[in-house]
Amino acid sequence: MIDQGSVQAAAARIAGRVRRTPVIELPPADAPGGARVWFKLEHLQHTGSFKARGAYNRILAAAERGELPEVGVVAASGGNAGLAFAHAARTVGTPAEVYLPETTPAVKVARLRSLGATVVQTGREYADAYTAAIERVATSGALFCHPYDQPEVCAGQGTLALELVEQIGPVDTVVVAVGGGGLMAGVATALSGTTRVIGVEPDTAPTLHAALAAGKPVDVEVGGVAADSLGARRLGDIGFEVAGATGVRSVLVGDADLIAARRELWDRYRLVVELGAAAAPAALATGAYRPEPDERVAVVLCGANTDPAALANSSAAGQDSAASTAAG
Amino acid sequence: MIDQGSVQAAAARIAGRVRRTPVIELPPADAPGGARVWFKLEHLQHTGSFKARGAYNRILAAAERGELPEVGVVAASGGNAGLAFAHAARTVGTPAEVYLPETTPAVKVARLRSLGATVVQTGREYADAYTAAIERVATSGALFCHPYDQPEVCAGQGTLALELVEQIGPVDTVVVAVGGGGLMAGVATALSGTTRVIGVEPDTAPTLHAALAAGKPVDVEVGGVAADSLGARRLGDIGFEVAGATGVRSVLVGDADLIAARRELWDRYRLVVELGAAAAPAALATGAYRPEPDERVAVVLCGANTDPAALANSSAAGQDSAASTAAG
Repeated sequence: MIDQGSVQAAAARIAGRVRRTPVIELPPADAPGGARVWFKLEHLQHTGSFKARGAYNRILAAAERGELPEVGVVAASGGNAGLAFAHAARTVGTPAEVYLPETTPAVKVARLRSLGATVVQTGREYADAYTAAIERVATSGALFCHPYDQPEVCAGQGTLALELVEQIGPVDTVVVAVGGGGLMAGVATALSGTTRVIGVEPDTAPTLHAALAAGKPVDVEVGGVAADSLGARRLGDIGFEVAGATGVRSVLVGDADLIAARRELWDRYRLVVELGAAAAPAALATGAYRPEPDERVAVVLCGANTDPAALANSSAAGQDSAASTAAG
Repeated sequence: MIDQGSVQAAAARIAGRVRRTPVIELPPADAPGGARVWFKLEHLQHTGSFKARGAYNRILAAAERGELPEVGVVAASGGNAGLAFAHAARTVGTPAEVYLPETTPAVKVARLRSLGATVVQTGREYADAYTAAIERVATSGALFCHPYDQPEVCAGQGTLALELVEQIGPVDTVVVAVGGGGLMAGVATALSGTTRVIGVEPDTAPTLHAALAAGKPVDVEVGGVAADSLGARRLGDIGFEVAGATGVRSVLVGDADLIAARRELWDRYRLVVELGAAAAPAALATGAYRPEPDERVAVVLCGANTDPAALANSSAAGQDSAASTAAG
């Protein structure tokens, strides 16, 4: 469905549109068991998540093919994907319609409108909005933009991995959060044959875990503190195919691990991420993934669409202990 | 008092102790008037501010000279300098005593203790604690660590500028916040002869502005929203000497500008800084400093010891407008 060539083409297509996000290496004392660990600060991307990469690639690729209609693009997402499609559409100069359930909080609607999107609220659940969106596509000819399960979307997310390797050289392992699997699919494809990919999910939204166990994507109960960003009900078909073909490994963490990892990122590094984006660092912090000595591990911090108030009354510098540089 | 050699020596001395903090370039549409603008993300430094550089240099240089006594180091600061000295002392393995007024909030005392410092609370004002600290130094032989007005402290802060030039090449201008002037002095010394330094202060704490006007450091009334970090009552002697010798320029911004710039850093870039650290970007945002077309400008984000709750109910992605990449 996607291959390394499609990721490379995406990188060329979206160059200059997306931010080249920084990478920091952890002090040796912060890295488990003698591994070398880097954070990819993709939460500093436009609209606060990696989704901008896939959104640009989807829209620009359609424009290249002459398939970007005047009516513009349609998406169904009140989260990071909706923001990214709205942003990319505006930058490219095409209209964006975003379908949401009537129950969507007003603040999310306002954000999308501030990015120039037309917001259509219909039905009580996400599934209703999704159905209305694809009906709108069928009748209007608009370009449908899926949050994760389209080849151009996944290929766009994979550009993060090419950028990472340009920045720090070859890596043995990339650790990413998984919701619908678009980021995982893009990264695993981009680095196929050279790099292990670890897909991390909260045990309250285990789409990859359940798909690997069942041998196919299956619906799971989703909930928990990261449902906002990792709450897809089932893994995408592209994510499933790539996971199988490239040997992506699934690890689970608990909601409390997400909360602790998020706080640690602030206390120790002054980085603010959303709870879903804390899944990847939580896998290392909990030992759910244990790298080998000298293993080169990149941990993707993939989103920061969150209210910083959740970090109020932080212990601040208190956790930036001497241990963090003792071996530095 | 300090020269480029002392900054270079500091860089060699503290290498591996401090974090190499990332730099991001702003999209062209975010940079005023055709300039190229970079943010130096020094707020991601250990203990959340650049002060860790000077603290390590002060303590390690004393150890090199055989002048680090068993009784350790003494500082008087409940802010970023106190945290940095406590952290560096612990890492180096020497005791730290931090003197504070009795009125210091418990949370600041707790932070210092969590970094291993002994906290001594005495008197009602900072000046009382300062006097007690230097008395303690006189009687115990401990190493006194000033927040900004010591050559080794200033030289340590200047290592930020050497790192910056390694990362992005020569710069025409560096924009920094000024309180006591240690960071300004270090940066202006490090880049003397090649780079203009703009010192930015809130008009509620104008130590550099007043010193340049008076021809010497003078006491000023300090207050405002950034008094926590930029509230030194007068510019340090080193800062004054370096500012005169290298032609540092002073610009002022208002408290409201700090608040707006801080919010913009979150809304647009997902960076959380303290209000004092918003002074430098505020100088560009307000036009208090206007770069020339093609000017290469580095803006130092120098601290993040703040409660993120102040950013609650942010408009989040709303400000990450299409304009920010339209020219990208």
